[in-house]
Amino acid sequence: MSKVSLAKGTRDFPPEVMIKRNFITETIQSIFEKFGFLPIETPSIENMSVLSGKYGEEGDKLLFKILNSGDFLKGVTPEDIKQGAKGLSPKIAEKGLRYDLTVPFARFVSMNRNELAFPFKRFQIQPVWRADRPQKGRFREFYQCDADVVGSPSLLYEMEIIQMTEEVFEKLGIKNFEIKINHRSILSGIRKDLNLDENQETTFFVLIDKLDKVPFEKLSDSFTDLGINTIDQARLQTIFESKAGIYAKLDLILEQFPATKPGVIEIKEVVDGLAAVDSLSSKLNLDFALARGLSYYTGAIFEVKALDVSIGSVSGGGRYDNLTGNFGYPDVSGVGISYGIDRLYVVMEELGLFDQIDQRTTQFLIVNFEKSHLLPYMKICKMLRKSGLRAEIYPDAVKMKKQFNYANKKGVPFVIILGEDEVAQDTFQVKNMKTGDQQVFKIDMIEEITALVDSESI
Amino acid sequence: MSKVSLAKGTRDFPPEVMIKRNFITETIQSIFEKFGFLPIETPSIENMSVLSGKYGEEGDKLLFKILNSGDFLKGVTPEDIKQGAKGLSPKIAEKGLRYDLTVPFARFVSMNRNELAFPFKRFQIQPVWRADRPQKGRFREFYQCDADVVGSPSLLYEMEIIQMTEEVFEKLGIKNFEIKINHRSILSGIRKDLNLDENQETTFFVLIDKLDKVPFEKLSDSFTDLGINTIDQARLQTIFESKAGIYAKLDLILEQFPATKPGVIEIKEVVDGLAAVDSLSSKLNLDFALARGLSYYTGAIFEVKALDVSIGSVSGGGRYDNLTGNFGYPDVSGVGISYGIDRLYVVMEELGLFDQIDQRTTQFLIVNFEKSHLLPYMKICKMLRKSGLRAEIYPDAVKMKKQFNYANKKGVPFVIILGEDEVAQDTFQVKNMKTGDQQVFKIDMIEEITALVDSESI
Repeated sequence: MSKVSLAKGTRDFPPEVMIKRNFITETIQSIFEKFGFLPIETPSIENMSVLSGKYGEEGDKLLFKILNSGDFLKGVTPEDIKQGAKGLSPKIAEKGLRYDLTVPFARFVSMNRNELAFPFKRFQIQPVWRADRPQKGRFREFYQCDADVVGSPSLLYEMEIIQMTEEVFEKLGIKNFEIKINHRSILSGIRKDLNLDENQETTFFVLIDKLDKVPFEKLSDSFTDLGINTIDQARLQTIFESKAGIYAKLDLILEQFPATKPGVIEIKEVVDGLAAVDSLSSKLNLDFALARGLSYYTGAIFEVKALDVSIGSVSGGGRYDNLTGNFGYPDVSGVGISYGIDRLYVVMEELGLFDQIDQRTTQFLIVNFEKSHLLPYMKICKMLRKSGLRAEIYPDAVKMKKQFNYANKKGVPFVIILGEDEVAQDTFQVKNMKTGDQQVFKIDMIEEITALVDSESI
Repeated sequence: MSKVSLAKGTRDFPPEVMIKRNFITETIQSIFEKFGFLPIETPSIENMSVLSGKYGEEGDKLLFKILNSGDFLKGVTPEDIKQGAKGLSPKIAEKGLRYDLTVPFARFVSMNRNELAFPFKRFQIQPVWRADRPQKGRFREFYQCDADVVGSPSLLYEMEIIQMTEEVFEKLGIKNFEIKINHRSILSGIRKDLNLDENQETTFFVLIDKLDKVPFEKLSDSFTDLGINTIDQARLQTIFESKAGIYAKLDLILEQFPATKPGVIEIKEVVDGLAAVDSLSSKLNLDFALARGLSYYTGAIFEVKALDVSIGSVSGGGRYDNLTGNFGYPDVSGVGISYGIDRLYVVMEELGLFDQIDQRTTQFLIVNFEKSHLLPYMKICKMLRKSGLRAEIYPDAVKMKKQFNYANKKGVPFVIILGEDEVAQDTFQVKNMKTGDQQVFKIDMIEEITALVDSESI
């Protein structure tokens, strides 16, 4: 037998990990719901015609393709094979695994446009697949957790995404974070005022995006290559490195680069709106060096950083004006945000934020002293479960040490002990695994037992 | 642009479907947790060496294979191609999508045997993929919802699976159902007493499995082909069609086919145990014609039918003694049950059981009369959300009819109306969308508003 292994870049999630991951997704889901987002799911498998050409050339290479079922070589000619892998692939693999949730969502909206209530607010928490080179923290299968609204250009939604994001981080317990905002029209306004061509925009944006990690000076040559002179570079550096407040920054950019005006107006409306309802948080920062690689953004863009853990951004999003156009449904404006479960997990783990969460593990383990006592064990277990408590019986009358190890490993807070005397008297002992305290209960004292659990808030 | 479509045999789940599906999975999950099962997840993508040869020849054909990334033709010789699809496939597609949750679970247990607390009780709710011919009610991507215990032969778990299954159906609101139980040792005992060879067992079991849909008489020729004479066939028919109670049936089978004894003893212990703790339900029936196709079962087997809807079984499971043996970890006994989400959905839909569930949709839609009032709308919305209520603002001041249509389509129970007068007086009107009743609230009357929601139990 060959050595058993996981496929490269994939992971198993054992219970202790799943419980923490579920805490993150359930927390975010309940906030999505509070903001009026409803769940959808799309299939993992999509036709390649839906996926191809949506993620740029690099993205296309990372698509996982599914071999046609049955005789996939039927109809394939020697000429097809001579074309090599790239030419052959569309003939033998017509389906693929989704690369993100955004493109399948755009397909969904386009296909269901006549049934949906617009503006359509949906959330979606599902895995995606990318044939990336696996490395620390980067996987070939990982979850995305997205909320989007399509069908309205209203800036109300930009404000709500900021409010919602703040609530997500608060509820997860992450106190020190920064929500960065910028606007594509501010970036393209700068580009225009610098007299760069429209076809230089992508290169310019990619350079800007690097400023997050690389000091301005180190990119100076690249800016020069684009045709930006030293005076303009000095102006750019002032803008990008400004530590002023949002309003001061808006004045500054408008003064230096007047073509940014359409973007400045929108950001100001968002910030004014939040301030008016006391929701303008000190966490929100305007960052002109935020560009976000995804080419489909057209309006405001967002990114969130957890400041106590060095891990890059944990969330990002923005407004796009024509995502469904790819699927024959043009001119539908949308705005969305995506929370990175894996990175949020790392942040929370490093900050010890999982220590206090409800593990939802077994609350009571009934220790098995004596096989012939299975009946009284089962009676107690049934009674506990009937009261909504999580309980189980150790199945075999093995050594106590083994049974207590089981309880410890599973994080069970209470163990129920039931010897000859207790069986005779219809009582049982409850031992608190943390404190070692033991208390005796009568079998019908369910209120007292529930109180015991509540007092431990487990 | 080509017509946009879903890959064959796959589905989108819009919000109204997702909400119902989530109700099913969340209900089952909370019962799994009450019985001490913990969540795990395994990757969708597994090495083909893990999947191949585990599901029989037919199953192998249904595996979705993933094309190797990059130049998948590298190292492929013309001879490989001459071998045809079947021979070429292992060279160009070394990974596949999981076919069920059981085999990946067995791999997981085997790989993590040193870290797990045994008996290991896990549940797992994830999609699986089969390249089946799509037809009504059969899909190429669908969810499985499994709970298994491995690492103990104790019959306690058979009892608990029956208790748990009953609770699942009760909590889902399905009142009329039947839990069938049988034992592989009863079936092989019958086979032995009929003097059939061991290698005839599979054929014999497959025949028995058909009795669910085909009357005994129609299979008579097939039983004859196996070498079963008419007298024995009459004995079989009596057994399979018996309408007696469990205990009477156990006596009957033991008398007719003494080699069934090991199975009879186990079933009796399970039934006695349940009876002793008042958990022996009238829903539980011993059905000797239950065989269950999956070859890995070795002990008790289960199947659940919803009796008011003709849809076949909605749940099934059993005990297996060597599932992890495939992955180098032999002699680990396990027992499990799988609930079919898609079929449970159909049953609940047909019985109207979704009518009363919490839709978790927006509870309050704030109607947009006037763009300049966005601020008071946002204040009310923020206040509602702060109290844990689900609320949203219609983003544009379009016609009332359109906004009310939006509320209706989304199933929003309350609409908040705020005209000039209300804004001036810091009040707002709440309209009940079902009854048409309107009530006026002051902006700080959050307790009264919460009470309103509770009274509708939405």
